[in-house]
Amino acid sequence: MKATVVTIGDEILIGQIVDTNSAWIGQQFNAIGVKLYEIISCGDDASQIISALDRAKSTSDIIIMTGGLGPTKDDITKKTLVDYFNTELVLNEEVWAKMKSIFEKRGLQVLEMNRSQAMIPKNSIMLPNERGTAQGMWFENEGRVFISLPGVPHEMKHLILHQVLPKLKEHFSFPHIAHATIMTSGAGESVVSHKLTDFEAQLPSHIRLAYLPNLGVVKLRLSGYGSGTDLAQEVQQQKHKMIDALGQLVYAEGEEPLEEHIGKLLTNRKHTVSCAESCTGGYLSHLFTSIAGSSAYFEGSVISYSYAIKENALGVRKETLEKHGAVSEECVTEMLQGLLLSMKTTYGIAISGIAGPGGATTDKPVGTVWIAVGNGEHCMAKRFQFFTSRAENIKVFSNAALNMLRLFMLNH
Amino acid sequence: MKATVVTIGDEILIGQIVDTNSAWIGQQFNAIGVKLYEIISCGDDASQIISALDRAKSTSDIIIMTGGLGPTKDDITKKTLVDYFNTELVLNEEVWAKMKSIFEKRGLQVLEMNRSQAMIPKNSIMLPNERGTAQGMWFENEGRVFISLPGVPHEMKHLILHQVLPKLKEHFSFPHIAHATIMTSGAGESVVSHKLTDFEAQLPSHIRLAYLPNLGVVKLRLSGYGSGTDLAQEVQQQKHKMIDALGQLVYAEGEEPLEEHIGKLLTNRKHTVSCAESCTGGYLSHLFTSIAGSSAYFEGSVISYSYAIKENALGVRKETLEKHGAVSEECVTEMLQGLLLSMKTTYGIAISGIAGPGGATTDKPVGTVWIAVGNGEHCMAKRFQFFTSRAENIKVFSNAALNMLRLFMLNH
Repeated sequence: MKATVVTIGDEILIGQIVDTNSAWIGQQFNAIGVKLYEIISCGDDASQIISALDRAKSTSDIIIMTGGLGPTKDDITKKTLVDYFNTELVLNEEVWAKMKSIFEKRGLQVLEMNRSQAMIPKNSIMLPNERGTAQGMWFENEGRVFISLPGVPHEMKHLILHQVLPKLKEHFSFPHIAHATIMTSGAGESVVSHKLTDFEAQLPSHIRLAYLPNLGVVKLRLSGYGSGTDLAQEVQQQKHKMIDALGQLVYAEGEEPLEEHIGKLLTNRKHTVSCAESCTGGYLSHLFTSIAGSSAYFEGSVISYSYAIKENALGVRKETLEKHGAVSEECVTEMLQGLLLSMKTTYGIAISGIAGPGGATTDKPVGTVWIAVGNGEHCMAKRFQFFTSRAENIKVFSNAALNMLRLFMLNH
Repeated sequence: MKATVVTIGDEILIGQIVDTNSAWIGQQFNAIGVKLYEIISCGDDASQIISALDRAKSTSDIIIMTGGLGPTKDDITKKTLVDYFNTELVLNEEVWAKMKSIFEKRGLQVLEMNRSQAMIPKNSIMLPNERGTAQGMWFENEGRVFISLPGVPHEMKHLILHQVLPKLKEHFSFPHIAHATIMTSGAGESVVSHKLTDFEAQLPSHIRLAYLPNLGVVKLRLSGYGSGTDLAQEVQQQKHKMIDALGQLVYAEGEEPLEEHIGKLLTNRKHTVSCAESCTGGYLSHLFTSIAGSSAYFEGSVISYSYAIKENALGVRKETLEKHGAVSEECVTEMLQGLLLSMKTTYGIAISGIAGPGGATTDKPVGTVWIAVGNGEHCMAKRFQFFTSRAENIKVFSNAALNMLRLFMLNH
């Protein structure tokens, strides 16, 4: 079973937007055992769309189009599909009524170009868009399924999850696949892989392991293929073996960002946290507060970029800075102590390092970072060395700090 | 003149990585007057690569491939190109010697799979990669140019800017194009467009205006097409008319993020800044500190997510919070005063709002934000209302705060 994604829009070709839809669709389809054969991005032009569809039809069973359906696109995509499938547009009264009611509620006038969005090709199945005014469309032609979706990511995703995947599962008989995902943090891909040498050696050939590393977090996904009724159970057993082999590197089963996982731990314990950030300049706090509901456990932070703020707001001693520098165990320990004193949170994190490109010394190259985590009673501090650019250093430093808090919380 | 981008790699099709290369290439090519006809992403497979190249050749003059050249890819792309262009691989002694010397310097052993990276197709021109071990390759065939580049973004970009674009300009005669870009902040695309109604009406047809909006910043690009020797001058004159029409919305000529622009202003004046952030949770400070060299002007911040920190670290009065709430003119004004007292910076920014999804009240829906900026003497506070999701609200709030500082600095 193969699929092709066709993304439609001049804005992709001129580089105004990055096409993130295709990667997301690739993940969803991969999970149900459908391989993407190709992704084609073409312009808002009938002949280009037709040419892309002809190519997709020759290689794939499922063709997913995104984009080209907005009210300002002059309906090129929809008109092209009507011609391509030799049909005509009819007004869908239900969609039209719903659209008018939404516009009225917002006190807006319904325009003729909105009405055209309620016109649906006669031989298509309408996939109702609960998040916007451009409806999804499902065509069947010569044994293939063609699906046209709006390009706005959250509308497209909602339609795929609630309309497209259920309908595809009805329409086709997909291979039997069972997945299991675990999340690890604290080691790179090569260390994780080394720890899994024996595990991988015993893994049966119908269960495959994929490494998906991203800035200090390595996601591991097992995918089992086969017809046995106990496939899901077998994959779960292998998952538990993998967890045993990795020990404390594993922080969660299933997909979960590290900041969300820590947020749940803190919420469950009714504990709180605060940060003293130097080199990460607010990014660590941003990770915490990117999670909805984080005000339940995240109290606040001091971003002490300068020596003066480290001294005045966190009480770091002048002698410490002079003798050991800001990137030192002594400095982050004092930052942490000052932070916990003023913020009065259960846990604190202090971080100071060299994100680059400037600021390096002989013994502290770019990518050096000291992190301290602790509560009122205990404290641990650790030095890390990374080898990447300023933008990435800020992110890997922050993830290392989150992971240190996670490990500290295992024992405290 | 048309081009097709072919991105090669299974990791794109399974959605492990998002292809950002194509959008960047689209921007670069668009700027020299080459239109992308299509972007095709295919897997690491000879027949798929050949099929994509055949299609690209039928529509385009220039075919740019990225990816598929790493040492772990089994050289499928290079072998496929050798077959496709009916040639053979020869060892490039210069590349091989350089590669060995780099490995020796790092104390690493050179492996056979590294040697294969020094093998270059006989009938290609090698484009030396100064950032990595996979070299670029330039083929000419049936009047078309085929270029193969590594997929690692910073290697690919360096090769495009320093090797590919100069060579393309030698090889083809491109249309004469002159560009001018300005950056605006403080109004959405529709307001900017409204202010440019008269300007657009007088714009000659050979000069086009593109709107490139992104989270509170709207980039405007004029592109002039023609053969006149004074085209560049004409575009510059139009740019100045556009600047006059937009007034203080314009913050820079040429491409420049708002945080970088403000960083330059502060550096030039030897002034400093600090932030008191609530709803943005560190993201505003992150924008400041994402700029290398920001320690020259960015002193630090207080992230006061809870009421307690607002009171204790910033001196906001309990009565203010009880009477007006945290999202109020009174609260951000007191946050700003407390911030300037403790941080002693030239300027301060205080921000408090409702990023969502929770926290809304009848008169303060999700997307409401109060921002205050000031120095020791003057202060201005303003309420904004945005209508987007938590993740985007955090970003647009932060950009609105940067823009308020910019406007404040015009007069103070």
